[in-house]
Formats: sequence, structure tokens, C-alpha cells
Amino acid sequence: MNAPATASHAFRGVWPAMLTPLNADLSIDHALYAEHAHALLAAGCGGVTAFGTTGEGPSFSVGERRAAIEALIAAGVPASRIIVSTSCAALPETLELTRHATAAGVHGVLMLPPFFLKGVSDRGIADSYRWVIDQVADARLRMYLYHIPQVAAVGLSHAVIRELLDAYPDTIVGIKDSACDREHSVGLARAFMPGITVYVGNETDLPTLGRLGSTGAISGLANFCPRLVHRLVMQPDHPGIEDDLAQVQALLAGLDGLSLMPGIKGVMAQRSGRAGWLRVRPPLVALDAAEQALLASRLQAIDGRWNVA
Amino acid sequence: MNAPATASHAFRGVWPAMLTPLNADLSIDHALYAEHAHALLAAGCGGVTAFGTTGEGPSFSVGERRAAIEALIAAGVPASRIIVSTSCAALPETLELTRHATAAGVHGVLMLPPFFLKGVSDRGIADSYRWVIDQVADARLRMYLYHIPQVAAVGLSHAVIRELLDAYPDTIVGIKDSACDREHSVGLARAFMPGITVYVGNETDLPTLGRLGSTGAISGLANFCPRLVHRLVMQPDHPGIEDDLAQVQALLAGLDGLSLMPGIKGVMAQRSGRAGWLRVRPPLVALDAAEQALLASRLQAIDGRWNVA
Repeated sequence: MNAPATASHAFRGVWPAMLTPLNADLSIDHALYAEHAHALLAAGCGGVTAFGTTGEGPSFSVGERRAAIEALIAAGVPASRIIVSTSCAALPETLELTRHATAAGVHGVLMLPPFFLKGVSDRGIADSYRWVIDQVADARLRMYLYHIPQVAAVGLSHAVIRELLDAYPDTIVGIKDSACDREHSVGLARAFMPGITVYVGNETDLPTLGRLGSTGAISGLANFCPRLVHRLVMQPDHPGIEDDLAQVQALLAGLDGLSLMPGIKGVMAQRSGRAGWLRVRPPLVALDAAEQALLASRLQAIDGRWNVA
Repeated sequence: MNAPATASHAFRGVWPAMLTPLNADLSIDHALYAEHAHALLAAGCGGVTAFGTTGEGPSFSVGERRAAIEALIAAGVPASRIIVSTSCAALPETLELTRHATAAGVHGVLMLPPFFLKGVSDRGIADSYRWVIDQVADARLRMYLYHIPQVAAVGLSHAVIRELLDAYPDTIVGIKDSACDREHSVGLARAFMPGITVYVGNETDLPTLGRLGSTGAISGLANFCPRLVHRLVMQPDHPGIEDDLAQVQALLAGLDGLSLMPGIKGVMAQRSGRAGWLRVRPPLVALDAAEQALLASRLQAIDGRWNVA
């Protein structure tokens, strides 16, 4: 089928939700971060996404997040191929990061609603986005709305999305839906595409969204299998799609019972041979030796064509 | 009955969870903040608590929170009569605020576990506290653990509390339990008092905790009825206690159907005649005219002896 046209300013391709590598003192390893970004771009990714949920974004301070983006760019990662999640509990900090990313020339930002208070109203959520966008007041700002209610515990209703699209038609270009609920993602696509693009976080739902016209993905698994993720969303009807989906299921089964971000970092550590990838910042806990051994045995059973290398 | 002895370093009396007054641009109104703190101290409060949940703490940036504490002290509020909630999603920011508050000479800090990621392990939560306390590395640090799972969505188990008490017996002096679950609060009191003090957030549970030896409260209602809250916890067996509880129930009924923080700010606005108290920061929404009128009619039906003035 032909995909409907999508908003011209929204990204295409796979922009992995980059894991954030850490030094022994749990500060960000800027060199390895840039190396990882370059490897993903070399593997055909459209760009990279910094400081999303998979990247433990809200575990880092405003200063750490600014410095890491500057270091990526200084290391030769084109700003135009970076999306930054600027999500914070405090709106002035979201504003600061959004201004910083916009001034640095990034492709766009990903923004959650403020996530500390729960049970807040649609009015308050829409006001939060308005407060940030109105104060950034920069025509270069390109924003993706971010819906991940099982983590943030504050989600985005159709009414909020509609209000923001009507108010900021040149700024809001897409929605990242990481709710892991296919029906919800399809509902968003039917309601809001092709005016803006809906990107689904759950890899097994990518072919469904690809067939509805979604043109890319911000994906955690894409840290180590970007080509596989690319096919899922960009070539959802290619002859091997069922095999690709089976591969994703096998990868997810390999992570079963492990905490997700430490598990994905464990895969990175095993594939790269660099134990530093195992490190996570509290409140996450790195895989222990038994978990690493379990993961290694599971990965050996999966063929390696998903590996970024 | 005689209350058992409690840890000598834990606070006594009512330390209201101060509302945070805002200017028209939604920045913090430092002058009104200090005025409010002085009024509460003059009304007999043991101290004041800044930037808790009632005070919309996580809605303000690290810089705003630091500046507001400095302004309170500069306006003559003794640092030793301030508790600061230093809770952030990012541990380096919790660390910065905790160091700042400790260096400023405050009585102590209140700390939530990092609250962005959900379903984290006890190990990760304990690691988070250890990371902050170990790096503050200051014998003056006095910390209250903060449990409010219906908002933070990350709570504190007995096992985590026990581990932290064993590791930091001179630092951890109390627990603020705002879960609004009397059975849970009593369980904490039986498990951990008198070694440390359990303070309950739910005002209707204060007499129960007072009888178990709790020596104070961090309370939202205490913004405008500190003397009433004081009696509930410090004189739980005085002859008028049932009448006091009925008064609290009437106040809570007055707020029924309103968002809690905007509602409490609405009471402050009506009692003080200063409409500025109505302002809240997104994602909260200020009471509208109809809600203000409803609140006014309900408050008129309650006698005014709970008013701080």
C-alpha cells in the first residue's frame, strides 16, 4: 500500500533511543557516547535520540545533559541528526534544555508532560506545553510529544494533542507513543496522521504503524539492531517481515526477567566486549554476574544479524 | 500515656509543608514566602518545611529552590527552623540541593527516592540514598525519609528503611509518611520508633501517631491552622480532641472536589485577601471563579478558630 504523506518536518528512519554510557564514577562517558552515535549513523540510522527513557534521561542533571549534547556535537555528530528529550519534572528546566537544544541546532526535542504530580488535568498538561513553547519562542523549535504513561504516570489525551496541534501547527511535528498498546497507537495514527507523524516505541508494533504511514522509530532495541528496526517500520511488507518480527521476539525473550535498561546495556556490554556499558545510575541496578551469564547464554542462541557491528 | 523517648535530633512540633506563593509570572514571591514563614513561626510552629509536595517542590528548578531558601534566611527565618525537601528525579540535583541546604545550616532535609522510573528495586532505592548521603559526607546532614507513593509512585519498604538506618544511624532521624494509610503509619511506628520518629502526613491520623510517640507533623493544612494541627499530634488526649478532628474533617470536606494544592492555596487567598495566593505552576491549574465561590461558601460555614491569624 502507499503510505499517506506525512508532515515534511518530521523525521524519517530510525533514531535509536541511545543508551547513556557511564564512567566508573557514574558520570557520562562522552567519548563512548559519541562513538556509539557515530556507529549508529554509520549503520544507516537517520539520527539518534538522546536522554529518552531508555537513555535514563531524567536521571541526569540539566548540566550533565547540556554538556553531553555539546560533547556529541563537538565530536562530529551533526546537530541536525540529534533529537533531545528535554523532559524534566520542573518546567523551567525543560525550558532551559529546550532552548539549549534549539540553539544548538538539533533536529528537534521530545517532551513529556511534567511527571511528578499525578492525576493532573488536561488543562494543566496543555498549559505546561504552552508555557515551554511560548517562552522558547523560536521558529526553529520542532517538538515531538512524548507519551509513556506506564513510566511517566502522566499521559497525553487526544484532546491535549489536538489543542497543541491547533495552537502550534508549525512546532508540533510528531508523537512518540511508547505506551506499548497497539490499539492506542493505531488510534493516534488514525486521529492525527498524516498531519503529524506517530512513532511507536514498541518494536513489535512497528510494521502495523509503518503500514499506516509512520516513517520511522525511536527505539531502544535499535541501540544494537538498527537495521532490523529500520526494516520493521520502513519495509513492513517486505518478504522477510515475519522472520524479522520473530527475531525481535527472540531478543525480547532474551531480556525476559531482567530490568529493561540494565538488560539492554548488558547486551551492549556483551556485543562490544566493554564492561563499562553495564553501568547504570541509581535507582537502576546493573546486571549481576548471574544475570550476565543468563543473558550471554540466551544471546548465543540467537543469530547475530541484528548486531549493529 | 507517656510517649516513648524519640531520637534527640528529630524535630518536635508542627513544621507546615509551606505553600509556595507565586508572582504573576509564576516565579516565587520571596517576600510573601518569608512573610508566611514568619507568621507560622509566630503562631507557634516549631519550624517550616520548604518545597514538599504541597509546596509544589519538584515544579521548581534547582536554581529557584536554592534562591528561595537563601531568601528565607536573608529575611530572618532561622535556618535551624527550616526543613528542605531536596527531592529531584536526578540524583545529582538532589545532591546539590542537599549540600546547599546543609551548608546553609537548615535543621534537615526531606528526601524522596528518584521518582521518574517506576518498578525499581529496593536495592536501587537504597543505592540512591547511599549515593547522596555518601557524597554529601557531612556530619551536619540530618535526613528525613519521605514516603508518598500515591504521588511519587516509588515508595520506601521497611527493608530499605532498615538498611539505611543501619548504615547511617547518625544521619537518618525520621520518616515522613504521607501515604494516607493509617495502618501503614502505625506499622512504621511500631517497627522504627523510638529509634527514629515517624511523622504522618494525613492530619486525621495525627492523634493515633501522637499516642504512639510521634512528636510532630509536616502538614499541608497547617499552612492556615497550625495550632489545630499542633493539638492533634502533641495533645492527642486533650478533652477537645474529637472536636478538633471534626474541624479537620470539615476543612477537608471544604476542599472536596477541588485539586488539593490549588484548593489549599484558595483557602490562603480567601483568608488573607490576597489573590496572588491562588497562583499555581503548571501542571496544576488555579481555582476558577466558580470554584473560589464554592470554597468561600463552604468556609463561611466553618468557624474560624483554625485560622493562623
